[in-house]
Amino acid sequence: MSKIRTAITPTREENFPEWYQSVVKGADMAENAPVRGCMVIKPWGYALWEKMQKVLNKRFKETGHENAYFPLLIPLSFMVKEAEHVEGFAKECAVVTHHKLESDGKGGLVPAGKLEEPYVIRPTSEMIIGDSFSKWVQSYRDLPIKINQWANIMRWEKRTRLFLRTSEFLWQEGHTAHSTEQEAKEETFQMLAIYKEFMEGYLAMPVLDGEKTPEEKFPGAESTYTVEAFMQSKKALQAGTSHYMGQNFAKSCDIKFSNKDGDLEHAYTTSWGVSTRMIGGLIMTHSDDDGLVLPPMIAPKQVVIIPFLGKDTDDAVLDACHVLKKQIEKLEYNGEKIEVVLDASDKNAGTKGWDWVRKGIPLRITLGAKDLENGTFVLNRRDKAANEKAFISLKDGFADFPAILEEMQSNIFDKALSFRDENIKEVASLDELKAMFANDDAGFVLCYADPEVNEDREKLLKELKATARCIPFAFNKGNAEGECIFSGKKTSTKIVYARAY
Amino acid sequence: MSKIRTAITPTREENFPEWYQSVVKGADMAENAPVRGCMVIKPWGYALWEKMQKVLNKRFKETGHENAYFPLLIPLSFMVKEAEHVEGFAKECAVVTHHKLESDGKGGLVPAGKLEEPYVIRPTSEMIIGDSFSKWVQSYRDLPIKINQWANIMRWEKRTRLFLRTSEFLWQEGHTAHSTEQEAKEETFQMLAIYKEFMEGYLAMPVLDGEKTPEEKFPGAESTYTVEAFMQSKKALQAGTSHYMGQNFAKSCDIKFSNKDGDLEHAYTTSWGVSTRMIGGLIMTHSDDDGLVLPPMIAPKQVVIIPFLGKDTDDAVLDACHVLKKQIEKLEYNGEKIEVVLDASDKNAGTKGWDWVRKGIPLRITLGAKDLENGTFVLNRRDKAANEKAFISLKDGFADFPAILEEMQSNIFDKALSFRDENIKEVASLDELKAMFANDDAGFVLCYADPEVNEDREKLLKELKATARCIPFAFNKGNAEGECIFSGKKTSTKIVYARAY
Repeated sequence: MSKIRTAITPTREENFPEWYQSVVKGADMAENAPVRGCMVIKPWGYALWEKMQKVLNKRFKETGHENAYFPLLIPLSFMVKEAEHVEGFAKECAVVTHHKLESDGKGGLVPAGKLEEPYVIRPTSEMIIGDSFSKWVQSYRDLPIKINQWANIMRWEKRTRLFLRTSEFLWQEGHTAHSTEQEAKEETFQMLAIYKEFMEGYLAMPVLDGEKTPEEKFPGAESTYTVEAFMQSKKALQAGTSHYMGQNFAKSCDIKFSNKDGDLEHAYTTSWGVSTRMIGGLIMTHSDDDGLVLPPMIAPKQVVIIPFLGKDTDDAVLDACHVLKKQIEKLEYNGEKIEVVLDASDKNAGTKGWDWVRKGIPLRITLGAKDLENGTFVLNRRDKAANEKAFISLKDGFADFPAILEEMQSNIFDKALSFRDENIKEVASLDELKAMFANDDAGFVLCYADPEVNEDREKLLKELKATARCIPFAFNKGNAEGECIFSGKKTSTKIVYARAY
Repeated sequence: MSKIRTAITPTREENFPEWYQSVVKGADMAENAPVRGCMVIKPWGYALWEKMQKVLNKRFKETGHENAYFPLLIPLSFMVKEAEHVEGFAKECAVVTHHKLESDGKGGLVPAGKLEEPYVIRPTSEMIIGDSFSKWVQSYRDLPIKINQWANIMRWEKRTRLFLRTSEFLWQEGHTAHSTEQEAKEETFQMLAIYKEFMEGYLAMPVLDGEKTPEEKFPGAESTYTVEAFMQSKKALQAGTSHYMGQNFAKSCDIKFSNKDGDLEHAYTTSWGVSTRMIGGLIMTHSDDDGLVLPPMIAPKQVVIIPFLGKDTDDAVLDACHVLKKQIEKLEYNGEKIEVVLDASDKNAGTKGWDWVRKGIPLRITLGAKDLENGTFVLNRRDKAANEKAFISLKDGFADFPAILEEMQSNIFDKALSFRDENIKEVASLDELKAMFANDDAGFVLCYADPEVNEDREKLLKELKATARCIPFAFNKGNAEGECIFSGKKTSTKIVYARAY
């Protein structure tokens, strides 16, 4: 049987991790930097991030948050304040110890000007933002404070992979302080819901929302909530988290307010974040053996027009492409004008076509002299086979584009959702669980499980290379009591386990 | 004579540097961070930055630039490649030497995991972006590359001042590579022109554009162009720069392409940037003894509505405020909807009024029960005296707002321009120049001067605490020959000198 040629090698089937790297490279999204574990985010990858920022920023502002900016560096003395927190991050902190460079006399440079107190590059900003909050808050009238920051973050990771896990990454981190527990909890849930809506609505990436088990929560948090996405490799990806801190960080950072009765209380805080990791999730949810597949709502451009140029007809074809571009750009999709790129670059049309397939652009138009004669253009949809094409009237055939894009958006989501749902399996015993994780394609494995910390269970899970992803809300609504498959204890809680990135 | 009370103390007259700090504090824009020389940019300051980003980003994209992101950290071996460049930055580099923290056994933390090769936090990104360009460019077909990056930058400054000079700041840095000298030079001038248009059009901040003298150019550049703003203290502020690198950085970073004849050539590169420093310039150009004054085109919000609440009439007044807000928000100014904030916070109307004066919001509306009876609201304009008010018809008086905002924008610019122009003085001899710089209010001092490097002149200027700001284009159009006031040599070049931030 002859192999079908694909634009990406290897295929998902052949080698998923290598396929992933090839998709990133083929779409020209990012590459490894000459700095350990760091990446260069190239224009097509960064345009995706900008689009994500735009949508989220709007939602954050609508829900009363303001953007601000806090220092990159955090004094070591701040890190010590919260014991669990420093324990969680100490092993992966980049440390600044000097403030200048000197010649080493051999043409090289050495650090000079040793700092009295070293700084770490923020691995997250709870401690430095908490310090500001402690100065900003005196009375209940100063609360709530609802801040968001777009920033770069540094965590010295051992094994890194473009977008999924890099030493430096870009993210947003929301930090809020409230006068009551209830208000802080509502904030935590609100932001989790915004993440879920965004990921399902824009990224077409279905997520299981739920609470993290105690072992998996954020260092220092009272409780952590998560949105867990499901990759085509049948592994989970933690795509965003929202933390309810209780008064833990307010105590470490001294965030106190006088309440209406004039008594001093510690504030209740939250934090929540998503990062460039989402781009990795997006890739592994939708892409195929021809490269990236972008849901139209998050695509930086929705349409590419590729002129098919012959020697004598260049001008007429190019003119027609420009006219078509202008007409399509008048159309609205999801409340904004459709964005079109006309690729008039100095390559042949076939090469350009495959470049744009690999970049995942939703609609691909080709137009040559013959098409012009026939009054049509050729349309390829990225959600269909690469060679499946339609001939569309140049006159008004593009008027359907908003409807086509809408249909593609739901097709892409539905496909991902079916795949995810087919791969949630419930097990009733430890043996069944072990049998599932004998293979790499276990998917999401659901079972009755007591969420208490248990070292034996942790050891077993480590052997199975699985982790508790969350206590999913969707599967914890009025459960009958069952037996924890690990301890046999009665519980009504179901936990979902999976291999994860 | 009794002193007029001002919302900011001290006044500009009394102590300009302290007035500046008070304006920043009074407008709640930023504060010093607990990290040496760094700042926390608070929501009102950050909103200004976001507005600047939005306008500039649009202009960058319209002129064919794409955003991307490069690593925060730069290997020391990269810094060494360009001798002038490292010389220029070595004394102010934050150096990362370790990648984790360990307990010191006494409740504190110490750096651990020493790196084989230390990294510096980017003081600018020529070397790290140049490395990428060297991989991206093979043929003339790969050129031009036109990249912009929004990023944080670290320079370990000795004396810092909020926005004007901080160890960490936010900026954009454009980096481009071209196949010809001419194209690279055109890019350099184009970006300088965009900066000038933006600063004069949006920030209402007049700038002198011109070329830097050899001593003042960017380390490693062939030539540096600058936009120099003029502060109310009569000092200059370098508000943005655009550098033509020639082939210098292409040689250091090995950016080579094969030209149309198949020969290998080094590319011609440029870089250009503006930073959060512009916010400092904006403040010192327009603000008065009542605080910040924002040109409407850059104000995060153009209008505040402050309800004057009495016990019985709260609902009616608040309702009227909400109605008014909606009506004003329908109006367009500069192609976008007018942005209105309704300040219903728990403070008295007088306090709120002064808070918004200090924040520099262009239009301030107060509305109480009596106004409601009269069918009017009270309007204060930030470009007029704080107590100068007008009674405007609630029914339709707000319809003039777009015209009023336009008028304010030009008033604010015209005022700054007159002030700047009154303070450009031409001198014909060295004695005259020295006499000017005997005082702190010398302003911009223009004279015939040979731009060649001259150590004696540098020494003299140092004594006078003055620097060559630029060879201003406006004053170097077809000059007759004159005598350099320093050397007596014949020259047709005029240079502008000033004290500067």
